[in-house]
Amino acid sequence: MNNVEFSFELIAQDDRARLGQIHTPRGIIDTPSFMPVGTQGTVKGIFTDDIIKTNSQIILGNTYHLLLRPGIDILKKFEGLHNFMNWQKPILTDSGGYQIMSLSNLNKIDVKLGAIFRSHIDGQKIILSPEKSIQVQKIINSDIVMVLDECPPLTDNKKILSNAIKTSTKWAKRSKIEFGINKSKAIFGIAQGGLYKDLREESIEKLLDIGFDGYAMGGLAVGEKQADMFQILNETVENLPKDKPRYLMGVGTPSDILGAVNEGIDMFDCVMPTRSGRTGLAFTWEGKLNLKNSKFKDDKHPLDQNCDIRHLNKYSKSYLHHLIKSDEMLASMIISINNIYFYQQFMREIRINIKNGTFKNFYKKYIKYFD
Amino acid sequence: MNNVEFSFELIAQDDRARLGQIHTPRGIIDTPSFMPVGTQGTVKGIFTDDIIKTNSQIILGNTYHLLLRPGIDILKKFEGLHNFMNWQKPILTDSGGYQIMSLSNLNKIDVKLGAIFRSHIDGQKIILSPEKSIQVQKIINSDIVMVLDECPPLTDNKKILSNAIKTSTKWAKRSKIEFGINKSKAIFGIAQGGLYKDLREESIEKLLDIGFDGYAMGGLAVGEKQADMFQILNETVENLPKDKPRYLMGVGTPSDILGAVNEGIDMFDCVMPTRSGRTGLAFTWEGKLNLKNSKFKDDKHPLDQNCDIRHLNKYSKSYLHHLIKSDEMLASMIISINNIYFYQQFMREIRINIKNGTFKNFYKKYIKYFD
Repeated sequence: MNNVEFSFELIAQDDRARLGQIHTPRGIIDTPSFMPVGTQGTVKGIFTDDIIKTNSQIILGNTYHLLLRPGIDILKKFEGLHNFMNWQKPILTDSGGYQIMSLSNLNKIDVKLGAIFRSHIDGQKIILSPEKSIQVQKIINSDIVMVLDECPPLTDNKKILSNAIKTSTKWAKRSKIEFGINKSKAIFGIAQGGLYKDLREESIEKLLDIGFDGYAMGGLAVGEKQADMFQILNETVENLPKDKPRYLMGVGTPSDILGAVNEGIDMFDCVMPTRSGRTGLAFTWEGKLNLKNSKFKDDKHPLDQNCDIRHLNKYSKSYLHHLIKSDEMLASMIISINNIYFYQQFMREIRINIKNGTFKNFYKKYIKYFD
Repeated sequence: MNNVEFSFELIAQDDRARLGQIHTPRGIIDTPSFMPVGTQGTVKGIFTDDIIKTNSQIILGNTYHLLLRPGIDILKKFEGLHNFMNWQKPILTDSGGYQIMSLSNLNKIDVKLGAIFRSHIDGQKIILSPEKSIQVQKIINSDIVMVLDECPPLTDNKKILSNAIKTSTKWAKRSKIEFGINKSKAIFGIAQGGLYKDLREESIEKLLDIGFDGYAMGGLAVGEKQADMFQILNETVENLPKDKPRYLMGVGTPSDILGAVNEGIDMFDCVMPTRSGRTGLAFTWEGKLNLKNSKFKDDKHPLDQNCDIRHLNKYSKSYLHHLIKSDEMLASMIISINNIYFYQQFMREIRINIKNGTFKNFYKKYIKYFD
């Protein structure tokens, strides 16, 4: 740890695509950045030193999950998640808003009290207020803290979306107050508003009034079409301040990321590389490969000739096909590392192309490549 | 690979416990030796370079499983299992006899044809003759080949056991002929006879007449009491030649191994360290720990302070408890490596104590320690 303060530096721009660096006491994050997801205090199936070898510079933890298990007493005892899970680089934690909507048995949203829900593990009734979410994120010792928001499911009902903005704005304010002042860490606001330009703009404006270290687009990647997501980003991302990082939550496929970078987004997180890894789906420069497919049965080539993490380039597709068919854990382990490594290579290529002013060519080449 | 011929060197003896070395073109195997089990071409949940870091010098593969999947065409294409699974040290393969008894839908034993059974995967009818078993083991490119035997389930029926010896002896002879002459590899005979001294002696005598590079005790660790297993080893192991390695198949717990070394056994294999790893059971110098137990909930100590493979000594028992409760793959990965590493440390201590003439003290200290 050192005395570096949290800051964002915009290094270069190629049309709207941005090259930047986030500075934190736990290390630099080159943007556009992809954050592997470590929901329960582990990026599924990968040792932390291998996550580092994939060139990941930050991972995401889930406040909702960690609050339920291991719980705050254990996290306090370890002085946070970094020590608990043996990962000393930066951690961003979401606030629980999205998981409460998607996973828990949500009882109700009470603007004053917070989200009232039942745990998906043991049915226990829990009230998560904005203050509580930030307190938990502080106990996690998160480097980038997210405000508690109300994240409605996909809807075109303006009233629902508008109400969610009202609640989210109030909660954002209270989250900011609870966060207080801590220059070595950051708190990000989360904009809602579904696919409506006017609502997004309203939400962003209100967050700007409060003032955050970074801004996230929430309530996207919840089932809408990719073109609709790109469209709303195109219409509203430019309303975000140039000198702060912009984070699109829960996104996505390589082409989702590419299209969002094209609209000026800097940060991403998604379970896709690890979840796909566990089902035998590999991301490679040849495209997306379903290794269950019998066409790989006697393919002696590795997924990536150049990836020598854990000697991954010595494992053939034929062997991986065999491991998947045999329901062997090693398949998930190999393909998960491969996929995170691929995502990080992909982000690196995005950054190089922005720097060189060749992003549009890269964009055109790969925007449909992984479909 | 080099021009080393397969050989066994007896280095020291402490009462009946033996210290030795097996030389093979793929490396030395210090005995008493423990072989991790890689049934389907992978030691479950462990990268091959981590297996090497546990100081494992040889692993076991299962002919039955590999014959069914990936099948001999794929294994031929890779010129054997070493290249296919990315493990260049020695491999011992069992012959399929035990799995046909325990896993498949055994149709019948036909002395002339072989074992006739249905695959546990797709029900396909397969005939495994002694010749076929050796041919498959050759395609696997196994360094130590086992004869096909008839391995009856636990019984005190002398007629069943005696018939199994008759069949096994005939098959052992045919296996040896099929193996031919190959000085860089070895073929081991397998003695049957259950818990009867006279039957074991008869089986051993017949194997000695044929002549093998090593001798295994089969049909043990099939449900009998530990004391009974030690007793029959005590009564019959000395009938095996001093200048050949002695292998007790499918054994066992640390105390099983200790007791068998005490009777003069040199080689062991067992799924226990990896299978236990997947259920949260850790072998340590503190004893056998069930990490599911809530007493480990806030235990900040690692399983083994001195084990730095994959930084295992940075993961606390508390964290492992959390991972198990959360059904996270990383728990299996960590505990499996820990357990294999512990087994190899345990074997190393056995070897040191034999060398120093202090084996009996070590035996007394640990024979009940892991119960």
